[in-house]
Amino acid sequence: MNNREYTEIILRELSKTLSAVDPLKAEEFCERIEKAEEIFLAGAGRSGFAAKGFAMRLMHMGKKSYVVGETCTPNITENGLLVVCSGSGSTKSLVNHADKAKEVGAKVALITIDPDSPIGKIADTVIEIPAPSPKSARQGNVSSVQPMGSLFEQSESLFLDAVVMRLMEKEGMDSDAMFGRHANME
Amino acid sequence: MNNREYTEIILRELSKTLSAVDPLKAEEFCERIEKAEEIFLAGAGRSGFAAKGFAMRLMHMGKKSYVVGETCTPNITENGLLVVCSGSGSTKSLVNHADKAKEVGAKVALITIDPDSPIGKIADTVIEIPAPSPKSARQGNVSSVQPMGSLFEQSESLFLDAVVMRLMEKEGMDSDAMFGRHANME
Amino acid sequence: MNNREYTEIILRELSKTLSAVDPLKAEEFCERIEKAEEIFLAGAGRSGFAAKGFAMRLMHMGKKSYVVGETCTPNITENGLLVVCSGSGSTKSLVNHADKAKEVGAKVALITIDPDSPIGKIADTVIEIPAPSPKSARQGNVSSVQPMGSLFEQSESLFLDAVVMRLMEKEGMDSDAMFGRHANME
Amino acid sequence: MNNREYTEIILRELSKTLSAVDPLKAEEFCERIEKAEEIFLAGAGRSGFAAKGFAMRLMHMGKKSYVVGETCTPNITENGLLVVCSGSGSTKSLVNHADKAKEVGAKVALITIDPDSPIGKIADTVIEIPAPSPKSARQGNVSSVQPMGSLFEQSESLFLDAVVMRLMEKEGMDSDAMFGRHANME
Repeated sequence: MNNREYTEIILRELSKTLSAVDPLKAEEFCERIEKAEEIFLAGAGRSGFAAKGFAMRLMHMGKKSYVVGETCTPNITENGLLVVCSGSGSTKSLVNHADKAKEVGAKVALITIDPDSPIGKIADTVIEIPAPSPKSARQGNVSSVQPMGSLFEQSESLFLDAVVMRLMEKEGMDSDAMFGRHANME
Repeated sequence: MNNREYTEIILRELSKTLSAVDPLKAEEFCERIEKAEEIFLAGAGRSGFAAKGFAMRLMHMGKKSYVVGETCTPNITENGLLVVCSGSGSTKSLVNHADKAKEVGAKVALITIDPDSPIGKIADTVIEIPAPSPKSARQGNVSSVQPMGSLFEQSESLFLDAVVMRLMEKEGMDSDAMFGRHANME
Repeated sequence: MNNREYTEIILRELSKTLSAVDPLKAEEFCERIEKAEEIFLAGAGRSGFAAKGFAMRLMHMGKKSYVVGETCTPNITENGLLVVCSGSGSTKSLVNHADKAKEVGAKVALITIDPDSPIGKIADTVIEIPAPSPKSARQGNVSSVQPMGSLFEQSESLFLDAVVMRLMEKEGMDSDAMFGRHANME
Repeated sequence: MNNREYTEIILRELSKTLSAVDPLKAEEFCERIEKAEEIFLAGAGRSGFAAKGFAMRLMHMGKKSYVVGETCTPNITENGLLVVCSGSGSTKSLVNHADKAKEVGAKVALITIDPDSPIGKIADTVIEIPAPSPKSARQGNVSSVQPMGSLFEQSESLFLDAVVMRLMEKEGMDSDAMFGRHANME
């Protein structure tokens, strides 16, 4: 098959997966973002890259956002929100992060395939994305011809970009204002 | 609008943009990947996160892949391929990378909105993605309601995931074999 | 030679190099840090790791610090200070960063072997560390049996740690207060 | 005090700490590096930056080295060596890495203040650096006026640079050969 045929398959899979995400949960997630004083993003591998892309857009919107593990990320406090992106919901380093966040009284949101996972059980808000998981017994309801966790990672990324658009709408923010905060030394 | 409505808008924009990518150029890009001894990925910001996601999948496929700027990335040689992901095609640090790669005789591939950009002019293969650019005069033919370069970054990411599927098809590789190379210490 | 003998050689080289750094320039550098609203650190390779270590300590001290190229690093403004760590003072990506910072009216400080380098010429404060450089004609006055830029990188790192101690003294800050801001999710 | 006085204090502390590191253990560590097919470095915060600096030098020497958590780092196998840099020896994410490495039959080396820590107990080689620890009951025998874990991090970094010199001696490698593998696109 050629590239166009493959992208059509991917887009059909994404359409199925994203239309199964609960819009009320998405709205709850937006509210958590807005209420938090500081927002910390955590994720491993390709899930982590999507998480970083979201952290960057939050910074563009003028919010205090951080990526767990990066150089200048401070301690989380009770006014913070930890957003964990994890297909399996059980990656050990991410479970640690979530446990520590809860210990200090911070809120935890999880974007995952498996709401019954260890992080799912302690999270304040769980966004379920029904994609297949290479690491978990739970496989979601949407099948995929893509390798490994690709469908989850893509869905997570587009879900978060839709959250950005909703936050822009709620806060009356436009692209130019955001571009003004864009890193200007590269 | 709610999250589902926003993801529908995003998917419609992606469908328009990705269906305008030249499948013959995509096939040429796959061939460059296969011929290269080592593949180096470079990109800034969110374009860079999509580039890293592709570098990781290439590693999963057993290829020698590197991200420019990461700790253990060696020098590029004449048998290497540099893949630059840059909406504007003119980010200065990326222009430097492309210049240096050409100097040592390596090949350069560019994924961009603007094939007439400085990197576009020296690249051996150019993949044009007709999304709007916040940094360039050239705006692509597909309009977007999304902020900044989001449509380009999403398109780049899904284009590269389709490239992974095509490479898997050509090389008879399956998801399980790739998962076996997945980082196992997290 | 065994490890102890090698560390003795390294410490003798460091003693010579660090005793040749101008303490008045160091004090000027501390003042620039204190005056800046936001401090941006930039460096490539091992110089960059030392720069990140300093950015982290500034965060521990309660200052707004960022590493150029990390996810949540915003635009620099006229009230910002860019600290570039570059043995040669001529690494292209770092020259770009310094140029852009000057364009917006920010201050630039450089830690380098070569004060006559391109970045040295535009920097507001230059800290000269007289170590040998693998990339520059200028070699510093202190010879080294260590490979590549190791003596510079080590000197840069300890110089910056001494700056941290001086800032703590000036601001009456202690280690416990700093530890309270230490990332608490790992 | 001025910068020069502070660097003199730091160098005196380093001299005491590094002269207390067991040279036979250091030699054992060098042998583990030489025997390993692939070397994985792991560390958090400033310990992690020193670990990355060492991973980079190993790459310059032509060894297959990786940093845990970076994009193209593959799975570790029984022929791999995991080097953990952790003052406390008990950072949870690093304990996970060490556990997983042992599970697949890889070797683990630890550079630490506390040899009796969780990672110390499972490591095949432990390098003890007797600096104070902000996170551990064990404080090392060398006191420090520096904040947080600075003395450990500096000692770790110089210890590893001495290891590089010893490996160069054993393998007859010189700085020019290493510089030839240095990243050439920045």
